[in-house]
Parts: sequence; structure tokens; C-alpha cells
Amino acid sequence: METIYRVNMTDQTVKKETAPKEWIGLGGRGLTSTIVAKEVPPTCHPLGPNNKLIIAPGLLSGTMAAQSGRLSAGAKSPLTGTIKESNSGGTASQQLAKLGIKALIIEGRPSAEHWYRLHVTAEGVSIEPADDLAGKGNRAVIAAMLDKFGDKVGVLTIGQAGEMRMAAANISVKDPTQHIRSLGRGGLGAVMGSKQVKCITIEDPGPAKVAIADEGKFKAAAKVFAKTLLDHPVSGEGLPTYGTNVLINILNEAGGLPTRNFRYGQCDHHEKISGETMRDIIMERKGRPKHGCHVGCIIQCSQVYLDPEHNFVTAGFEYETIWGLGANCLIEDLDDIAECDRIMDDIGIDSIETAVLIGVAMEAGVIPWGDGKECRRVLSEEVGKGTPLGRIFGNGAGMVGKAFGQVRVPVVKNEGIPAYDPRSVKGIGVTYATSTMGADHTAGYSVATNILKVGGFIDPLSKKGQVELSRNLQIATAAIDSTGMCIFIAFPMLDIPETFTSLIDMINAQYGLNLGADEFMEMGKGILKTEHAFNQAAGFGKAQDRLPEFFSYEPIPPHNAVWDFTDEELDEFWNF
Amino acid sequence: METIYRVNMTDQTVKKETAPKEWIGLGGRGLTSTIVAKEVPPTCHPLGPNNKLIIAPGLLSGTMAAQSGRLSAGAKSPLTGTIKESNSGGTASQQLAKLGIKALIIEGRPSAEHWYRLHVTAEGVSIEPADDLAGKGNRAVIAAMLDKFGDKVGVLTIGQAGEMRMAAANISVKDPTQHIRSLGRGGLGAVMGSKQVKCITIEDPGPAKVAIADEGKFKAAAKVFAKTLLDHPVSGEGLPTYGTNVLINILNEAGGLPTRNFRYGQCDHHEKISGETMRDIIMERKGRPKHGCHVGCIIQCSQVYLDPEHNFVTAGFEYETIWGLGANCLIEDLDDIAECDRIMDDIGIDSIETAVLIGVAMEAGVIPWGDGKECRRVLSEEVGKGTPLGRIFGNGAGMVGKAFGQVRVPVVKNEGIPAYDPRSVKGIGVTYATSTMGADHTAGYSVATNILKVGGFIDPLSKKGQVELSRNLQIATAAIDSTGMCIFIAFPMLDIPETFTSLIDMINAQYGLNLGADEFMEMGKGILKTEHAFNQAAGFGKAQDRLPEFFSYEPIPPHNAVWDFTDEELDEFWNF
Repeated sequence: METIYRVNMTDQTVKKETAPKEWIGLGGRGLTSTIVAKEVPPTCHPLGPNNKLIIAPGLLSGTMAAQSGRLSAGAKSPLTGTIKESNSGGTASQQLAKLGIKALIIEGRPSAEHWYRLHVTAEGVSIEPADDLAGKGNRAVIAAMLDKFGDKVGVLTIGQAGEMRMAAANISVKDPTQHIRSLGRGGLGAVMGSKQVKCITIEDPGPAKVAIADEGKFKAAAKVFAKTLLDHPVSGEGLPTYGTNVLINILNEAGGLPTRNFRYGQCDHHEKISGETMRDIIMERKGRPKHGCHVGCIIQCSQVYLDPEHNFVTAGFEYETIWGLGANCLIEDLDDIAECDRIMDDIGIDSIETAVLIGVAMEAGVIPWGDGKECRRVLSEEVGKGTPLGRIFGNGAGMVGKAFGQVRVPVVKNEGIPAYDPRSVKGIGVTYATSTMGADHTAGYSVATNILKVGGFIDPLSKKGQVELSRNLQIATAAIDSTGMCIFIAFPMLDIPETFTSLIDMINAQYGLNLGADEFMEMGKGILKTEHAFNQAAGFGKAQDRLPEFFSYEPIPPHNAVWDFTDEELDEFWNF
Repeated sequence: METIYRVNMTDQTVKKETAPKEWIGLGGRGLTSTIVAKEVPPTCHPLGPNNKLIIAPGLLSGTMAAQSGRLSAGAKSPLTGTIKESNSGGTASQQLAKLGIKALIIEGRPSAEHWYRLHVTAEGVSIEPADDLAGKGNRAVIAAMLDKFGDKVGVLTIGQAGEMRMAAANISVKDPTQHIRSLGRGGLGAVMGSKQVKCITIEDPGPAKVAIADEGKFKAAAKVFAKTLLDHPVSGEGLPTYGTNVLINILNEAGGLPTRNFRYGQCDHHEKISGETMRDIIMERKGRPKHGCHVGCIIQCSQVYLDPEHNFVTAGFEYETIWGLGANCLIEDLDDIAECDRIMDDIGIDSIETAVLIGVAMEAGVIPWGDGKECRRVLSEEVGKGTPLGRIFGNGAGMVGKAFGQVRVPVVKNEGIPAYDPRSVKGIGVTYATSTMGADHTAGYSVATNILKVGGFIDPLSKKGQVELSRNLQIATAAIDSTGMCIFIAFPMLDIPETFTSLIDMINAQYGLNLGADEFMEMGKGILKTEHAFNQAAGFGKAQDRLPEFFSYEPIPPHNAVWDFTDEELDEFWNF
């Protein structure tokens, strides 16, 4: 796995390159961030010819290791202006890895007159005309590609949001059951759209395998690794049973479930939207309560949600989306939320950013609180069709706040804050403030230790220990995001030593290396520092590592907690 | 003149304070920037309770000195996020000075349920209910205040744009002939709107005079000063004859007239929109070719523009507005441009920002190039009524660019670039890049020396000497903006030594001081440094002191000039 394809959309050329030696130990986020930092001018326009979209499988992607099928995409984000990595399941990561491809670099910018499809095979990458796909939603694109290439083709696609270069546009990735996963946050779909690439198809490599230096050692480690995942109560029980939406009741109980645009920490109708209720609905309608986003996933936190007539509505229906529309926007009907999720998947817009921005729009009186039907209409008829209101929404919560003159706008570095109130879950607040990515909960999921008591317990309402917690988690996460592993391996990793040792064993066995635990963490530190340096050169300093002002003067019930970190305390984050 | 009124809109209280000693030598911009830097948290939300709106007459305002009636307003800008000072003519500056008021500080934020009017008299400031004015345009507000208080009342008002807290909203100031001048740039109208202050009325102080320490010396200096203004070809002849719009033909000739959203440096139909043509139209329709924005103005660059039926359309019809809609948006009919100006004045939105954003909207295909009728409709029916498209427009060129996924967006620090192409008039490009205010041509009007050959000549197409030129002008301008003087005194100041010496003589005579030329310039340096420090604390660093990327790779005809300053060259600006 050492091939880099460099696709230049300005002059419509493709170059095959061999990865330079210094990129060999890098995959996923480590590789996308390294390439962006090296090749993208930090002050360039994110939609201009000098930004680049990097797509890279993780170090372990394509192997038999459980949870290793995550794909990374990186660029300068049109939403945040920072460096950005977003990752997703689907089939593409494993397929690219098996084709020996370490990264696709999509650069330049053609005139906006035509759309293109990149086709990736064992022989190389070709740029194909795709004007026939223009204007189509993601489901129609996937259906057309399945018709053309058969069920096993890998597909990355942008919907109407990406075509319109909306800063909340994502990139959809087809999963093994032909459903949609998303490279969700940071508007990478707009970057793909700016390059006039409507979709990327990947020929299935069939029985091809990635090279493993020591197969026996790898298999043994993979077995240990998988067992630890199943042994842990979160990855082995909570997530498989209820999906990520298990968190609604937990966060509500903790008073950290942002409700009515971050006005309250608990939601009266939490039972109507909880993971437990969702599971009951799915079972009753004969949907699938468990579902994996990629082959080899043994956690199976995804699910397939059907309507009352047993028709497919959506898959990969996550806590953050349900929190956002359910608690934060006060929509009580899970079917309305599921329908919104379906529409967002189809037009290709980040469901977290969208849920946050609708909360701001409701605060501004643009949509009535709790009106799920109006949300469905706005998403399909306004955002999907690019009306002026749709353009405002499609560019995220920050733009909604500015357009309607709002002060209570929960964004950091212009990215919407998800699902966990930073005042009452302070560890995640540190992550939101300091992450190189903007307000990204997965960048350092302190909720694990603050709320789920994984890796010990740090009181969520106290400032003590939160900066160190977030720092350690952000470092570990940057490294994990480079392996192709799902972030949920962090739960057992924090409690079961063998998860980590077997992970390192697999990397060493595959690449014939002799990495230790320290070197793995050093890799994480190096990635964060690379990203931080890019952001600093792009104009981000300490003043941007802050939460919105209203968190500091508006207490949130039931704990009446405020955001009370001093600047100096937060700035300690980067002391490593 | 040492009274400060502190109006707290949260608890609806007014405090009368005496200016602290260190504010005594400050007026206008020097004072507004000092107060903002001292009292406003740099990372606060510009529309939140912790921002403050400061209104201050200049040091010489209220005296008999020619050109001394400019008013400053300052705050953290909702458009740029930087510190901001905007200044304007009208009657308010002289009235406040004669009432002995050094500054109004409007702070806090009430609930958004009610609107208020501040009423300023010799006795103090009162907060009056003003719900009856809500939703009204500036002309209707002024008419209502004239009805209530008579012709001499001073009025500051926001239109619908300010009420909606649009980031391009300005504050209108009534002039001596009841027409509208504007505290135009940076969205200070939105700050006033965020405080629910619809208007400010100022009781005319009648024969009251500001105190002058040495009347005889002052009169003598004022006479010399006025004579030098009349002696200079720009302030004594060009501006009085054609208004600021004299610049259309001059910039077109120089290849620096940005045309079709900064695509070209010359405009085919420049003759149709030039100052010469405008004068002919005004004369034919019996409008006023000369008009002053405040009592005591002897340059009279303003005018009153009538329609073919001799009805009033607009006054203060400036080059930058005519450039923007005429050349940059390709509108050929001066009557359409004048009608747009009238609408913008009434809804209270900055005509420079608006002209720039319409260029971006035309680039995006939202409005056809050159369609003046559609611009009129969009301004009155969309912006004025706050439709979603109007909200996008009302928040400036940066938001239009983001909403419609555009790359060619001429903004610096999110503020639209006016009227002079930075590639072919490089001195003004340095000002746009480095000004503490965003892309503000008046912050350091290098066009004077690059194009008008005032203060010598520096080749506009060469980088040589431009940083020093812009630095010297920005320093001098910061000081001039503190005096209450119109910026056009800079033209004679650059060529005639007595303009400067008599200006200093007047300040010394009024305040019983003994300032020298060096101390005046030191004041300018101090103001810039105060503003720069605020911006740095608000998160602005070197990466924000840059022009948009497309200027560096897109040559502009006819000179095919590009923006070619290195980062290091630009960063030299702050070495003083």
C-alpha cells in the first residue's frame, strides 16, 4: 500500500506516485493532515484551486482486524478555515487499501461547466464525464453506480449540498448494504464540489489482500483485540444493543443533554427519543437493531430504521442527530427525525451541523420550536434546492446566527457544538475549545470518563483534570484515526490493557515494525502539532480556542453550571 | 467638553461621568478606540451585552474651524470582528460638542421586546420608549423627529437593516438640510440595533459655544487653515466641482477602476457614470451640484441629485457607491444607481459593502450583470424586508460569497474592498491588507499619492515605497479622525505646510496646549497601536493582514497587474 494518485482537475491529469519514505508509517488522519500541511497554503481559499482533497484508508484498513475499515478525508475546511479530517465507514477504505492505494490527492479546479467522476481500478484512476449525475441526490447516484458497476463497487458521492459548495456539505460513502455513511463534518463535500467531482467509484478488488509481514502474529493479535472489544460493557453491550442513541437517557440523567438550543441540560420528552424507545420501534417494525458500517465491524452500533409500513427510512441513525433534532430542537416524533436524517443523507449535509443550525434558526423564529414537519420541508425544499434560506442553512450554524443576528450561537471555529453541553460536561468543553478541528466531539471524547466512567472518572462539573483528560484523549484519538480503526475501540482501550497492546501488535505485524506504546502516542502528538501549526499559519491563535461567550454568563439547569475556564487554563492544553 | 454619558440598556440607567484625565486630549476615533479597547472584551460577541457603542465628536467639533463637524462611532464590529471606527458628517457632532458631551457610551442589552430612543439635552440623556418607530426607514424616523422636535433637532437613526442586526447596517445621521449621512462601514447599525436603540435625538444647543482657551489665536489659525483648503486643486476645485465622483474617469484612466467584480481595471461605460456626466445631469435637473455634510464645510463635495421630474432622489451620492453599482456591477443608468443609493440610505445599509456584495451575487448568478432594476427590487423588497436573500445580502460580501460558494470574494477581514483595485493601485492594497478596520480606503488613502499625485508620486504599479506610504497615511489619518476633521483636509496637508501647522494651532488654541507636529503624529501611532492590540486579543494576527488569494493569481487588465507583496513585506507595516 504505497501508491499515491494525484488527480489534477485543472488540467485533467492523473499521476501515479510512490509514497515518499516519510509517509510510509502514516495512514488515515495522520496521512491526510501531513499532506494538507505540506501541500496546501494555509491562507488559501478553501474552495479555490489551491486547496486539495485527500482521501486515505487507515494503516490497518483492508486487513482482517475488527473495526479497521474507516476512511479518512482531509482538506482545509470551508466551514472552519482550519485543517480538517473527517472519517467514515463504508466499503471504500478497505477497497482502496486492497488496491494498494495509500491516498488519492485531488487538486486544482476546472471551470464549473462540467461534472466529473473519478474511477479507481487496479490499473489506475481515470477522470470520466458525469454531467448526467449533476443535481442528483446521493441515493440516486449510488443506485446509478450499482446499475453500472454491480453491487460491490465502492462509491463516494456528494449530493446537491456539495454541488452547491455549501460549507456543511459532507461526502457520502456507500456501505456494504448499499446504505449511506458520511465523511460528515467540516464541509469536505463542498471541497469535492469545488473540484467538480460529483462522485468517485472504486472497482472492487475482489479477493486481493493487503500485504502482512507476519500473518501469524497478526492473526493472534487480531483475535485478542476482537475479544477485548466484546468484553467491554460499552463496545460489547451498550452500543450493540441500543446504538449510539443509548446516550440520550444517560446525558439527560447527567444534565448534559443540550435542550432548546443549549438553554437546558435536560429534555422533558427524552423517553420519546431514547435509544431504548428506538430499539423498541425498530424491533416492532422488523428493522435491524444492529448493523455495521463496514465489513469486519463487530460492535454493530448502526441500525436500519423503518417507517410504520416497514419501508426503509434510514441507517446509521446516530445519537448526535437524534439529540440535535430531538432535544435541541424539541422535535418529539422519532419518525420525523428519521425522515430528516434520510433527507440529510440524500442531499449530503452534515446532520450534526444541521441539527445545531436548526436550533439557532428556531431561536431566531425562522422555524417553530419542535416543528418536525417544517424541518423536513426546509431540508428537502430549501436546502436541497438551494433557495436563499437553504443557502443560509447549508452553510452552518454560524451563518444562521449571523444572518438572523443571533447571539446564542453554539459554534467553535464556526463549527456547531454537538450533543454534550460543555458547561455540565466540562471535559468535552475543553475538546471543543482546543481541538484543531473545531467543535468535534470525536476529537477527544472526554464524555467517556466524565459520564460513562470509562478509564476512571473525572467529575464532569469540576474543572479539575479536564484539560489533561482532553489532551490525552486527543492525542490517542489522532493516532487511532490514523489506523483506520473506529473510535469506539477507545472504550476498551481505556479499561483493558490488551486492546492497546494487540492494536500495536497488529500494526507491527503488518508493517514489520517494532513500535512501542510510546511511539504510538508520539505519532498522535505529532499529528496534533502538524494540524495546530497549519491552523496557526491560517490565522488561528489562542483567541479562537474559546467557547462562545454566552456559555460563560448563562448557567444551564439543572446544575446551573457555567463555562468557567480561564484563558490561561485552556491554553495549558498545548503544553506538550 | 468633558461629560461622558454612560447609558446602560440592560438596567435602563444613565450615568453622567466626567472624562478621566487621560481621555482629555482625545476625541473622535482616538476616544472611541480608547474606550472600546479599555472596556470591551476583545472576544465578546459583537451583538451581545458586552459590546459597547461609543459615539464621540472630534476634538475640534463645534468650533468655527472649517471641516470640523465629523462624528465618530466605535464598537467591536459585527462585520469584521475587529475594533471599528466609522465617521460621518451631519449635525450631531457639533451639537454634542456644544452640549459639552465628549462621548456617549451605550452598553448592555435589553430584552428584544421593545425599542427605545435616547434623548440628549443640556440636562442629560433619557431613555424613551420608541416602539412606534420600529420597522420604519430612516427617512420616516427623521420626519417623525422633525415633527416632534423641530428642524434643528439632531438625529442618529437605524433603519430596518440595523433593527435586524445585519452586519452591513449603518447608522444614519441627519445633516443640516435634513438629508442623510452615514456612519457607514463595519455594521455599527447592528450594534445599535442589538441594544434596541432605534434612534438618538439631540436637542439643538442653539447659540452655545465650545470653550476656546485662546479665541484670537484660534480665529487666526482657522482663517489660514480654510484658505489652504481652497487653494489646493483637489479640495478647492476637483471635489467642489464634481464631488467624489470625479474619480470615475481618473481611476478608469489609471486602470484601477474595478469592473465586473474586480475582473477588469477599466469600464467601457465609464462616461455614463462619471462625475462630469453626473454634474451635467444635476445642473440640467436643477439639483445642487455642491452641498456640505455639516455646517462649516467649505469643500462641499456632496450634492443633491434629482430625478427627471426634479424630485429629490438622494444626497451624498459618492464615488464609491457609483463605482460599485456602476462599474463593478455594470449598471449603466445613473438614475438606477441613485435610486439604489436612496433605498440604501433609507433601510440603513452601507452602500460600499452593498455594492461589493452585489458584484459577488452577480458573479454567482443571483442577479444578472448590470440589472439596476433588479438591484432596486432586491434592496427594497428583500434586504429591507429581511427575506432570506435579504439576510444574506445584509450581512455583506463575505456572507454572499460563502452562501453561494464563490471564490472571487473581494473582502479583507470580511469587509468589502472598495473602488480602487489593489493590484493596480498597490498603495491602497497595503491599506486594505493592514488597516485595523478591514478594507477601509479612508484608513490610509494611498490613492492620493499613487494616482492624484498629491504629496508627491509613487508609481501605483510598483511595490516600492507603498508600505511606507500607507503607514504614514494611516498614522496621519488616525490622528485626523480624532479631530472631527473631514479626511479631505489630507489633500492640502500633503502639499501645503500651513494646513498642518494651522490645524495644530487650532487644537492648541482651543485646549490651551502646546502640541507639536511630532506629538500629533505620535497620537496617530498610539491610536493604531491601541486598535491593533485589541484586534490581536480578538484573534487577528498576520494571517488576517492579507488580501484575498485570487488577487495573487488573477492578473487585472489593462496592466495585467497581480498582487505580489510577500508576507514579510506586508508585515513590515507594523514596524513603528
